[in-house]
Amino acid sequence: MALVSHTVAPDAFGPAVALSCRECGARTPLAPDFACVECFGPLEVAYELPAGDPEGLRKQIENGPLNIWRYAPLLPVSPDVAERPSLNPGLTKLVKADNLARELGVTGSLYVKDDSGNPTHSFKDRVVAIAVEAARTFGFTTLSCSSTGNLAGAVTAAAARTGLRACVFIPHDLEAGKVVMAAVYGGDVVGIDGNYDDVNRFCSELIGDPAGEGWGFVNVNLRPYYGEGSKTLAYEICEQLGWRIPDQLVIPIASGSQLTKIDKGLKELIALGLVEDKPYKIFGAQAEGCSPVSAAFKAGHDVVRPQKPDTIAKSLAIGNPADGIYVLDIARRTGGAVEDVNDEQVVDAIRLLARTEGIFAETAGGVTVGVLRKLIENGVLDPAAETVVLNTGDGLKTLEAVADAARPTAVIRPTLDSFREAGLA
Amino acid sequence: MALVSHTVAPDAFGPAVALSCRECGARTPLAPDFACVECFGPLEVAYELPAGDPEGLRKQIENGPLNIWRYAPLLPVSPDVAERPSLNPGLTKLVKADNLARELGVTGSLYVKDDSGNPTHSFKDRVVAIAVEAARTFGFTTLSCSSTGNLAGAVTAAAARTGLRACVFIPHDLEAGKVVMAAVYGGDVVGIDGNYDDVNRFCSELIGDPAGEGWGFVNVNLRPYYGEGSKTLAYEICEQLGWRIPDQLVIPIASGSQLTKIDKGLKELIALGLVEDKPYKIFGAQAEGCSPVSAAFKAGHDVVRPQKPDTIAKSLAIGNPADGIYVLDIARRTGGAVEDVNDEQVVDAIRLLARTEGIFAETAGGVTVGVLRKLIENGVLDPAAETVVLNTGDGLKTLEAVADAARPTAVIRPTLDSFREAGLA
Repeated sequence: MALVSHTVAPDAFGPAVALSCRECGARTPLAPDFACVECFGPLEVAYELPAGDPEGLRKQIENGPLNIWRYAPLLPVSPDVAERPSLNPGLTKLVKADNLARELGVTGSLYVKDDSGNPTHSFKDRVVAIAVEAARTFGFTTLSCSSTGNLAGAVTAAAARTGLRACVFIPHDLEAGKVVMAAVYGGDVVGIDGNYDDVNRFCSELIGDPAGEGWGFVNVNLRPYYGEGSKTLAYEICEQLGWRIPDQLVIPIASGSQLTKIDKGLKELIALGLVEDKPYKIFGAQAEGCSPVSAAFKAGHDVVRPQKPDTIAKSLAIGNPADGIYVLDIARRTGGAVEDVNDEQVVDAIRLLARTEGIFAETAGGVTVGVLRKLIENGVLDPAAETVVLNTGDGLKTLEAVADAARPTAVIRPTLDSFREAGLA
Repeated sequence: MALVSHTVAPDAFGPAVALSCRECGARTPLAPDFACVECFGPLEVAYELPAGDPEGLRKQIENGPLNIWRYAPLLPVSPDVAERPSLNPGLTKLVKADNLARELGVTGSLYVKDDSGNPTHSFKDRVVAIAVEAARTFGFTTLSCSSTGNLAGAVTAAAARTGLRACVFIPHDLEAGKVVMAAVYGGDVVGIDGNYDDVNRFCSELIGDPAGEGWGFVNVNLRPYYGEGSKTLAYEICEQLGWRIPDQLVIPIASGSQLTKIDKGLKELIALGLVEDKPYKIFGAQAEGCSPVSAAFKAGHDVVRPQKPDTIAKSLAIGNPADGIYVLDIARRTGGAVEDVNDEQVVDAIRLLARTEGIFAETAGGVTVGVLRKLIENGVLDPAAETVVLNTGDGLKTLEAVADAARPTAVIRPTLDSFREAGLA
């Protein structure tokens, strides 16, 4: 795919210097490319990061805006990014989850990184914000994506704020909240008669077709930039802990990109001297009904065999996860694991997190908290160590999952007698 | 109502020194009381605020936590409040709404204060956080409220985080999202066969009954404390503007408490020297189907005649607003106005805000943006002045309102042919 605009400012990508192949290491200029021309491996952003003055860099970050742009010196964005229209996601709460810890028998510190606080209430605002910057730089006028729901809303909302046209693609049978949320921001929302993997395949076709000319697909031709947004989760967690890496992180797996970029972010912080170098373990969480990475981990395989998803955790329902093999690498290298839970355990975990911490998670959050619980029960995760678990989305978008379990206790007439009759007094 | 706990620490309420009657000015000690024993007027919190060193106070606030507790020196809470379990709401985004301004013909600066970024996605987290502190101080063990929906979820979530029992009361026919959100955090959610005013009357009965012993009703017997939480909206807006009061504010009216407390907060900031003294205009927004304050304003009345609500803006559907007469005072004193819009205009305004700024507002936000538009069209609000409009809730909780308008553009098969047939290429 050719560059649409050829007048890229020299500092448009900040510290990013090239795209590099994750497989063969070949480098190529910063462009809307996603596959290595040498070996077809996935491309990622390579940097020359501002090393040498960790104290100064830490101060610069701490004095920055209260969103992901405080980390602009570590992202593929222009230094003046904070001044341009953006949804300005990030700096979501890191909640000390003492009640949840007590219920789970965790004796170390337990935190929930709650990304439901983002503008469209999922972590996707982070990745889209970076993709929008790349789209603008490359001169794209339409912002697009294949999505399991959260991404569609994040893209249409970001397009609205930044004045781009949006046309997004989703499986036709998504949760009602996610469809309305994608469509309300204007732009085109196209339902595809198929699952996410069908939607994804269709987008790859469209990108090679004249109809897709001038389109920035945030998770296809802008994917190398987009993915970098997840690094900010690592940065924020460490900064919010007082510039310290936690012992253990539990992270959901859809494509696996988020988990790999959090690991990349942690390694960067160590290399820059912003945090002390120390071992950490990364655990991946999947739903049983879409557990290709978990299955490969347990079987000791190096490859991930695609599955046909069947789970209520639709935002994680990617049967052929692009970064699955890298997730396996990271879980094994750091001494972590990949585990899965069934739909009933997902609902239980959503309710557990809600009633202990007042955090209403999406099904993806239920998967992650459910896996946390399972890993503790199985003795795989150390309950005495410091643990951070991610909630990447909002329960309001997957109401269907808990609607049967979360109902009024009673309906009464507005009288004390009726109140007493209901057994509530 | 007697104090449940009599061991109130001397600094438990920080700078608050008494409750004072809004009508006759009589003072009474800080207790779970809400009506003046002299004249039955509403009680509010009176302070001895930390005057004399505005520069030092401003620094203290700026170095405080990234939530409402940064304003603890101006709130009826203990100085160490930030260290206790809380949902820690506040410091939501003040969005420069240039796209919306352009569409509305606003030439001055226009901002949206977007309180959908709070933990349970409405401004209610602010008021409940203060009420929880008072409940703890008074030794209440059950947290309760009458609610049009948002408050119920804010109360049950806060109770979960802080270890209190919750029992909340809502009209039985609320939006599905609000019911699930209230119930998911545990505790009892009781549907009342009636409207909000029926629910409210029932709670007042319950509070005088032995069955309500030990219960803190955040918007009844804890109302004076609870209401103070809305002052933080004024503090944040001014701090986020660089310690400056905007020329005009557009604020929704349910009970009217929020609007009056924002005015109180602005006056405090002026008195403390934290902002320059300058004139500002406050505009109130109602839905036509529940517009008792707007009707009184237009008719030039000093009293508010109750209405039976019939509007999609259920979170504003209070037919007998407790603070209505004070709202009239403030709108008239500041040179503002009170206006209303019909349900169709509410939906249009939700979509307008979404497609221009990527902010998905609740129906209450649609009312406020709709009224902003109407006030500009009628020449009542100055389009050249600096204006802040409040979005107090989240569109995900009132999906029903826009579900017909926000639908997929098309559903297609995952092929380029199907894409072209749908006219999308």
